[in-house]
Amino acid sequence: MANNGARDPFDNISPIDYRYWSKRLSKYLSENAFTRCKLEVEQALVRVLARRGICAATVVEAVAQACARVTTAEVYAEEERIHHDVRALVNCIRAHVSDDAKPYVHMTATSYDIVDTANAVRYRNAMQEVLLPALTVLLRVLVECVHRYANTTQIGRTHGQHAVPITFGFAMAEYVHRLGNSWMALRALTAEIPGKFSGAVGAYNASSLFFEDPEEFEREVLEELELQPSEFSTQVVPPEALTRLFSEITIAAGILANLADDLRHLQRTEIGEVGEAFAADQVGSSTMPQKRNPINFENAKSCWKIVMPRIITVFMDQISEHQRDLTNSASARTYGEVIAYVVTMTERLARTIAKLSVDPERLAHNLALQRGLIVAEPLYIMLAALGHPHAHERVRQLTLRAQREARPLEVIAAEDVELQPYLARMTPRQRAILADPTQYTGIAAAKAVKIADYWKLQLQ
Amino acid sequence: MANNGARDPFDNISPIDYRYWSKRLSKYLSENAFTRCKLEVEQALVRVLARRGICAATVVEAVAQACARVTTAEVYAEEERIHHDVRALVNCIRAHVSDDAKPYVHMTATSYDIVDTANAVRYRNAMQEVLLPALTVLLRVLVECVHRYANTTQIGRTHGQHAVPITFGFAMAEYVHRLGNSWMALRALTAEIPGKFSGAVGAYNASSLFFEDPEEFEREVLEELELQPSEFSTQVVPPEALTRLFSEITIAAGILANLADDLRHLQRTEIGEVGEAFAADQVGSSTMPQKRNPINFENAKSCWKIVMPRIITVFMDQISEHQRDLTNSASARTYGEVIAYVVTMTERLARTIAKLSVDPERLAHNLALQRGLIVAEPLYIMLAALGHPHAHERVRQLTLRAQREARPLEVIAAEDVELQPYLARMTPRQRAILADPTQYTGIAAAKAVKIADYWKLQLQ
Amino acid sequence: MANNGARDPFDNISPIDYRYWSKRLSKYLSENAFTRCKLEVEQALVRVLARRGICAATVVEAVAQACARVTTAEVYAEEERIHHDVRALVNCIRAHVSDDAKPYVHMTATSYDIVDTANAVRYRNAMQEVLLPALTVLLRVLVECVHRYANTTQIGRTHGQHAVPITFGFAMAEYVHRLGNSWMALRALTAEIPGKFSGAVGAYNASSLFFEDPEEFEREVLEELELQPSEFSTQVVPPEALTRLFSEITIAAGILANLADDLRHLQRTEIGEVGEAFAADQVGSSTMPQKRNPINFENAKSCWKIVMPRIITVFMDQISEHQRDLTNSASARTYGEVIAYVVTMTERLARTIAKLSVDPERLAHNLALQRGLIVAEPLYIMLAALGHPHAHERVRQLTLRAQREARPLEVIAAEDVELQPYLARMTPRQRAILADPTQYTGIAAAKAVKIADYWKLQLQ
Amino acid sequence: MANNGARDPFDNISPIDYRYWSKRLSKYLSENAFTRCKLEVEQALVRVLARRGICAATVVEAVAQACARVTTAEVYAEEERIHHDVRALVNCIRAHVSDDAKPYVHMTATSYDIVDTANAVRYRNAMQEVLLPALTVLLRVLVECVHRYANTTQIGRTHGQHAVPITFGFAMAEYVHRLGNSWMALRALTAEIPGKFSGAVGAYNASSLFFEDPEEFEREVLEELELQPSEFSTQVVPPEALTRLFSEITIAAGILANLADDLRHLQRTEIGEVGEAFAADQVGSSTMPQKRNPINFENAKSCWKIVMPRIITVFMDQISEHQRDLTNSASARTYGEVIAYVVTMTERLARTIAKLSVDPERLAHNLALQRGLIVAEPLYIMLAALGHPHAHERVRQLTLRAQREARPLEVIAAEDVELQPYLARMTPRQRAILADPTQYTGIAAAKAVKIADYWKLQLQ
Repeated sequence: MANNGARDPFDNISPIDYRYWSKRLSKYLSENAFTRCKLEVEQALVRVLARRGICAATVVEAVAQACARVTTAEVYAEEERIHHDVRALVNCIRAHVSDDAKPYVHMTATSYDIVDTANAVRYRNAMQEVLLPALTVLLRVLVECVHRYANTTQIGRTHGQHAVPITFGFAMAEYVHRLGNSWMALRALTAEIPGKFSGAVGAYNASSLFFEDPEEFEREVLEELELQPSEFSTQVVPPEALTRLFSEITIAAGILANLADDLRHLQRTEIGEVGEAFAADQVGSSTMPQKRNPINFENAKSCWKIVMPRIITVFMDQISEHQRDLTNSASARTYGEVIAYVVTMTERLARTIAKLSVDPERLAHNLALQRGLIVAEPLYIMLAALGHPHAHERVRQLTLRAQREARPLEVIAAEDVELQPYLARMTPRQRAILADPTQYTGIAAAKAVKIADYWKLQLQ
Repeated sequence: MANNGARDPFDNISPIDYRYWSKRLSKYLSENAFTRCKLEVEQALVRVLARRGICAATVVEAVAQACARVTTAEVYAEEERIHHDVRALVNCIRAHVSDDAKPYVHMTATSYDIVDTANAVRYRNAMQEVLLPALTVLLRVLVECVHRYANTTQIGRTHGQHAVPITFGFAMAEYVHRLGNSWMALRALTAEIPGKFSGAVGAYNASSLFFEDPEEFEREVLEELELQPSEFSTQVVPPEALTRLFSEITIAAGILANLADDLRHLQRTEIGEVGEAFAADQVGSSTMPQKRNPINFENAKSCWKIVMPRIITVFMDQISEHQRDLTNSASARTYGEVIAYVVTMTERLARTIAKLSVDPERLAHNLALQRGLIVAEPLYIMLAALGHPHAHERVRQLTLRAQREARPLEVIAAEDVELQPYLARMTPRQRAILADPTQYTGIAAAKAVKIADYWKLQLQ
Repeated sequence: MANNGARDPFDNISPIDYRYWSKRLSKYLSENAFTRCKLEVEQALVRVLARRGICAATVVEAVAQACARVTTAEVYAEEERIHHDVRALVNCIRAHVSDDAKPYVHMTATSYDIVDTANAVRYRNAMQEVLLPALTVLLRVLVECVHRYANTTQIGRTHGQHAVPITFGFAMAEYVHRLGNSWMALRALTAEIPGKFSGAVGAYNASSLFFEDPEEFEREVLEELELQPSEFSTQVVPPEALTRLFSEITIAAGILANLADDLRHLQRTEIGEVGEAFAADQVGSSTMPQKRNPINFENAKSCWKIVMPRIITVFMDQISEHQRDLTNSASARTYGEVIAYVVTMTERLARTIAKLSVDPERLAHNLALQRGLIVAEPLYIMLAALGHPHAHERVRQLTLRAQREARPLEVIAAEDVELQPYLARMTPRQRAILADPTQYTGIAAAKAVKIADYWKLQLQ
Repeated sequence: MANNGARDPFDNISPIDYRYWSKRLSKYLSENAFTRCKLEVEQALVRVLARRGICAATVVEAVAQACARVTTAEVYAEEERIHHDVRALVNCIRAHVSDDAKPYVHMTATSYDIVDTANAVRYRNAMQEVLLPALTVLLRVLVECVHRYANTTQIGRTHGQHAVPITFGFAMAEYVHRLGNSWMALRALTAEIPGKFSGAVGAYNASSLFFEDPEEFEREVLEELELQPSEFSTQVVPPEALTRLFSEITIAAGILANLADDLRHLQRTEIGEVGEAFAADQVGSSTMPQKRNPINFENAKSCWKIVMPRIITVFMDQISEHQRDLTNSASARTYGEVIAYVVTMTERLARTIAKLSVDPERLAHNLALQRGLIVAEPLYIMLAALGHPHAHERVRQLTLRAQREARPLEVIAAEDVELQPYLARMTPRQRAILADPTQYTGIAAAKAVKIADYWKLQLQ
C-alpha cells in the first residue's frame, strides 16, 4: 500500500504538504487529526451508553484504551480489506476490546454520525486553535500600523489616479475594519457548527429501538464534544453550516488579497511608499541582483487564487440526493486545505507587515506630484457652496488650463476674474486648504484611530 | 444610440429579459429602478442640507420635482456626451432646477456616495419586496406538504440505494429546515446592507469643509433612506455586506436545486413516487407524445447552474485597489440578475410543488422492493445490543444468503441456530419491526411535524 | 404575458440588454435570432424530404413562406398553451401551411435535432460575423501599435519592479502573439461546431423507418446549413464542441483583461507612460474635476470578471443524464451573453488603443529612475562570462552599496579593485551597455517587428 | 524546518498525499520530480554552452555530476537562507562544481527560463507517462463494453423518463466518442507545450551579449529537452498553452463525471441495470449490512467537483502584470494535483467498468415497463408520413387514454376507426415495430460498433 512507512515530504504532490505544511496545521488538519476526532466521537458515544446503563462503566475505559492504540495506518489497512472507511475504524477499535465490550462500539450509529460529528470537531478546533488566532495576530499588527501612521499623509487613489489626500493609517484602517468584521463572523459561524447522531437516514430509526427520547440521547452524545445537534439531519448534517463557514473564509481571503494587492502596488518602483523588509542575504532575482520584489504580497494574492475558486466545490457539495449520496466522498476531504492556505496567507502577511518599511519621503513626494490639481475638489465644492451655479464645469476647465500651462491650479483660480467674488467670501480655513492641499484630509486621522481603538478592544 | 425608443423584448440577449422577465422583477431590478434609487439618494441629501440650513427649504421641493422628471434615457444621452454616468445624472437634475438650487445638487457628494447608497436601497427593496416573499410562499407550500405527508411511509435512500424507511413528509421537512434557515439568514443580511456618504476617498474631506460632525451628517442622510452608514468606507462601501448577501443567495439557490433534483429523480419512470402535474394540453416531447418530463424541476436545477458560478464574480469584486478602482464597473451591474433568477426558481418550485402529484401506491411498491433486506439494520443493532459480538458481520453474511436464495432476511434469520438465543430475548416491539419493516421509521413523522410547526410559526 | 408589446430598454435587468446592447449583437444573439435559426433548420429538413421524394416540391415553398411569417411572440404564445417550446414552433409553422404539407413539418425530427442544430448555426454566425471580425480589428490596432513603438525604449517590469529595458512595441507584441493565437484557435473551433439529425435518443429510430441510410439523410440536412453532423449524438449533440469554444472565448477574454490591466497600471499617476485619450467634454469624476480615469481599461477588466466565471456553467452543462436531461434548459440560453460581452470588451479596447496617448518623456523618465541599478544584470553576466566565480553575489553586494551611497552602480563597479581585471577584458559593446543601459534591450525591437509582421500576414 | 526528515503520510493535509497518492503519480508530479526537471534544464543549458565553445566540455560532466547530487531538501535549506528558490538551486549546483565551472551554471538564464521550461517538461511527461496511458486503458475497457453489449436492448432515457429504445452498447459508445475526442485533443495539446530561454524580460537581453542569434541559442537549449520555444515570451512563457491543456483536462473530467453519473443512476435500487462488482468481504454500510453502494462512481463524480472549479485558478493565472508578476507563485504549484486527481478518476473507472455487472433481466424488465407507450413516437411519425395532418396531437390523446385505461397503446390505436386507413397502408416492418417496440432501436447496434471500431483503431 502506498502509504506504508514514512515518506520524503518532497515526494508529496500538493504544495500544502511540502512547501506550506507545518506541524501545527497538521495537528488539526491532517488525516491523523481526523482519525483522532472520529475516535473521540466513538468514545463520547460509549460514555453516554454507560451513563444511561446500556453498557457497563468498564466498557468506557476499555474503548478509551483501544482508541488510544488505533492508528490511521491500521484503519487504512482494514479498509483495504473491507472497502468501508468507518466500518474499518470500528473494526479496529473492536479488535482491541473484549467480546463483552464489542457490541457497544458504534452502537446505533451510522457512519456519518461519526464522520459529520468528527468534521464539526476538527473544523471547530482548526478555526479556534489556528485560523482565528492567526487573524487576531494580523489584526493586532494592522491596528498598530494604523496608530503609527494615523497622521502620515498619503495621496488617496481612485482608479489608480491621485484623488484627494488621506493618511496611511486611514488606508490601513480599511483593512482593520473589513478583516475585523470577517473575524467576528468567523467566530460566530465556528461556534455554530453542529453535529448529529440521528442514524442512517436521520429519523433516529436505530436509536428509537432503545430510547424513548432519541433526540435527547443525541444531545447528550454531542454535549460530550461541546457540540449542538443539527435541528434536523438526514444521514448527514445539512451542509449549510460548513458552506457558510467556508464562504466567510473565502471572504476573509479576499480581504487579505486586497490588502496584499494594495501594498504590492505601493511597492512599485515608481511609487515606493512601502516595501517588504529585505534580509541581508536575500536574493531578489536569479539574474538581476538589484531586484527587491514583493514576494510575500504576491504569495498572499496567489493563495487567494487557490482558495477562492474552491468555494465552488463547497457549493456543489450542497447537492446530495435524497437522504444523501456520497458524491462528496473525495471533495469534502479537501476542505481542510482551504483553512491551511488561509492560515499561511494570514501568518505571512502578519510577519511582513510587522516589518513593513514605510518611506515618508516618497509619501510626501507622491502627494506633491499633482498638488495643483488635487485642490480641484475643495475648490469646486466651496465655489458651489458659495452659490456658483456651474462650479464643477468651471473648475474642470481650469484644471485643463493648469495642465496645459503647467501652473498650479490655485494660482490660476486666484487670477480668474469671475471667481473673485466667491474666493473673497471663503473662510481662512478654506483658504488655507487651497494653499496647502496636504491639509485637505478631512477626518482621516481621527477616523483611523477610532477604528483602530474599537477593534483593539474587540481583540482583547 | 442603441437604446432609443421601445424594443421588441425578443431582440434582447439575456433570457432574464425575454423568457424570465416580469414587471415585478423589473420594478426593483431594472436600470430604471436603479435610476430611481439614485434620484432618491440625491433627494435625501438636499433634505438634510435644508434641515441643516445650508440651503433653502424650497430647494428640496425643486429638486424633488426635477427628479420626478428625470428619465434614464435622458441620463444616458448626457453620459454619451460627458462620459461619466453619475455626473450625467447630476446634470440632468440640475437642468430642471433654477440656478439658485443648482449648487446644492450632489453637494459634497462623490459618485459612489450616490451609487453605493442607491445599491443598498435597491437590493434591500428587491430582497424585501420580491425574493423574501417568494421564499415565504415556497416555505409555506413545503410546510403544508410536510403536514400532508408526515405519515406517508417512503423508503429512505442513501447512495441512490434503499436504506431504511422514513416518511415523505420527513423527506420534505429537510427542505423546510434548510430553506428556513437560509431565509432567516437572508432577512438578517438584508437588514444590514449599509450606505455611505463619506466623500471621494472616505475621509469626509469635502463634508468636513462644512460640518463639524461629518459622520453625523452622513447618518442623517442615510436615515432618510432607512439605512445605516458603513462603520468605515473609502470611495466605496466595503464590499463584504453584499458579498455575504450574495453568498447566502447562492446557498439558498443550492438548497432549491437540491430539492428540485430530489423531486426530479423521484419522478423517474422506474420510481414514479411524485410527478409534476400535467396540463391537459401540455406536450411532453415534440416527437414522443407520451413523455411527461420534470421540466420545472429541471429548470430550477438549470437556474442554479446559472447563478452559482456568478458568486465568483462577486468574490473577485472584493478586490479594489487603494481607495477603489472601477474594475467592477460592468460586473457589479449584473448582480441583480442573480436575484431575478432565484426569484424565478423559487416561484416556479412553489407553483409546481403546490400541485405535486404524489403516488401512494408507488411509494408502497418501492418500499416493498427489498423489504427482506432493509430489516438488516435493526436486526444487526438488536443482536449487538443483546450482546452478539459480531452482529454486523453475521447479518452481512445473512443478507448475502438472502439475496442468493431470494428469500426474506427475517425468515433466514429465524432459521439460524446461532441467533436463536438472541432472537428469543427481543421485545415484542422489536420483533414487530423485524416482521414489518415499514414500522421501522423511528420518529420520522413526529420530527417532520415538529420542524413544520416551528417554521410555520417563524413565517407568520 | 410579460413580453407582449414593445418595452423601454431600461426596464431590462441585464446590462447586456440596456448598457452594452447593440443591433448587431442582437441580430445574431437575441431570442429572435434563435427563432430564425430554428426556422432555417426546419426548412432545411423539408428541402431534403422533397429532394428525396418524401414530399412534394411545393411543400418546400409552402414551409418557407410559413417560416417567413412566424414570429417569436407567436411561438411564445403557443408555448404558453402547450408548455413545449419546439412543438410550439412546429405548431406555428403548421398553422400557416395546408393540411397536405402539415405532416412533413418536423418529420422524424426530435426537438433537439432542431435546437442543437440551430445553436450550431447561431454560434457559428455570431463568431464569424461579430466576434472574430472584432478581434481582427483589435489585432490590427495592436499590430500598428507594435510597429509604431517598436523602438521606443521602456523599462521592463517584473513583480511591479524595474527589471531591464525593452521597447513599448515589444510589450504590445506580447498581446499580438497571445491574442493572435487565440483568434486562430477560435476560428478553428468555430468551423467545427456540429449539428445533428439523429432523432429522439440519437439512434435514428424514427428516420430509420423511412431511410436505408439515416446517417446520409442527416448529412444532407446539415449540408443545407453548411454544418457537419456530430460523429455520434444522443438526443443532443455531445456538449464538448461548445465547451471548447467557450473555453477558448474565456481564454481570449483573459488575454484582453491582462492587456487592459497592463495599460491601466501604465496610466497610474506615478507612471503615466500611456493614457486613454480624453474628450474635451469628458468628466473624470462627479466631484474631482481634475481626474482622468482609465475607465475603458477598467471596463474591459470588469467584463472579464463577468464572463470568466460563467465557464463554470458551461462545464456543469457537460453533465446530462443518460440520453440527456434538460437541466441545461435555462443555463444554455445564457451562452450568447458571453459572446456579447467579449465583443464589447474587444471593440472598446480597439477604440481606446487606437487613440492611446503614449508619453515618450515619461517613458524616458521612468527608465532613468534606477538607471544605475538595471545595469546589475549585464554586469553580473559579463563578469561571470569572464570567469568571475561569484559574480551574482558580488554584484548583489555592490547594488546594496550603490543604494546606500546613492551613486551609480557602474561608477562603484569601476572603482572596485577586484573587478578591474574583468572589466578590462570587456568588449566595447559590452562597455557601452554598462555606460548606457538604455541600449540593453536585447533584440526587443526586432522581435516585436517580427511578431507584428507575422500576424499582419495572418490577418489578411 | 518543517520538511526535515521523513513524515507519516497521514500527517499530510491534502487527500492527494495520503488517500490518492501513488509512487507513479509522485514520480512525475511531486516537488522532487519538479527539482529533477529544473536540474535537467540547467544541464541542457551547459551542454549547449559547451557545444558553442563558451565553456569547456568538462563543465558539462561536472554539472551533470553536481545535479545528480543535488536534493530538494538541500535546495530548500539554501532558499531558507537567501529567500529565492531558483537562485538556491543554482547555488546548490555551484557548490558541487569547481570555481572554473561555476560561471557557466545558469549563464544568461533568468529563473523562469528554468522554471517554465521545467514545467513544460514535467507536465508533458506526466501527460505522456500517466494520464494519457490511463485514458487509453479506460477507452479500451469502454470499447470492449460497447462490443459486448452492442445488441443488448435498453430503454433510452431523456429527462429521466423512458423515451425510445437503444442498446446498452450504444449508450456506452457515447463515452467512447466523447472521451476519445478529448484524449485526442489532450495528445495534441501535450505535444505543443513550449519552453523558453529568452531571459529576464523575454528580449534576450543577456543572451544577446554573447550570441548573434539568441533565438537560435534558445532553440538549441530546448531541443535538448525535446521542446519547442514559445514564438514569443516575456520573463515567462505566455500561459495559454497550459490554460488550454488544463481546460481540456477539465473537459475530460466532465466526461468521466457524466459517465460515472449515468452508471450510478443505473445502479439505483429501482433501476438496477448495472452495478459495481462487490468483493466478498466488502461492507456497504457501517450500520446497514445489506447496502451495495456505487462508491466508485460516486468517487469519480466527487473528484470532478474537486478539479473542475480549479480551472478558475488557471484562468486567473492568465493575468500577470507587464513582463510578469509573481501572483502565481503558490497557485501554479497546485496544477499537478489536477492531473493526479484525473488519473485517479480514470483508473478507478477503468477498474470498476472492467468488472461492471450488467443485469439483462432488469434491462428487459425496465424496457417493458411502459411498452405500450414508447410506441407513441413511431406511431405518430408513421401516421404523419402517411399523411395524417394532426398525427402528433392525435397520438398524444391516445396515450392519455392508454394510461387512463391501462391498456397498450397499439391496441387502442388498432381499435381507432379514424386511424384504420393509415394503419392499413403501413409496411410489414412498420407494423412489426408497433407490435414489438423492442425492435424500435434504429441503427443503435450498428452505430455503436462503428464508433467502437473507429476508436479501437485510433488507440493502437
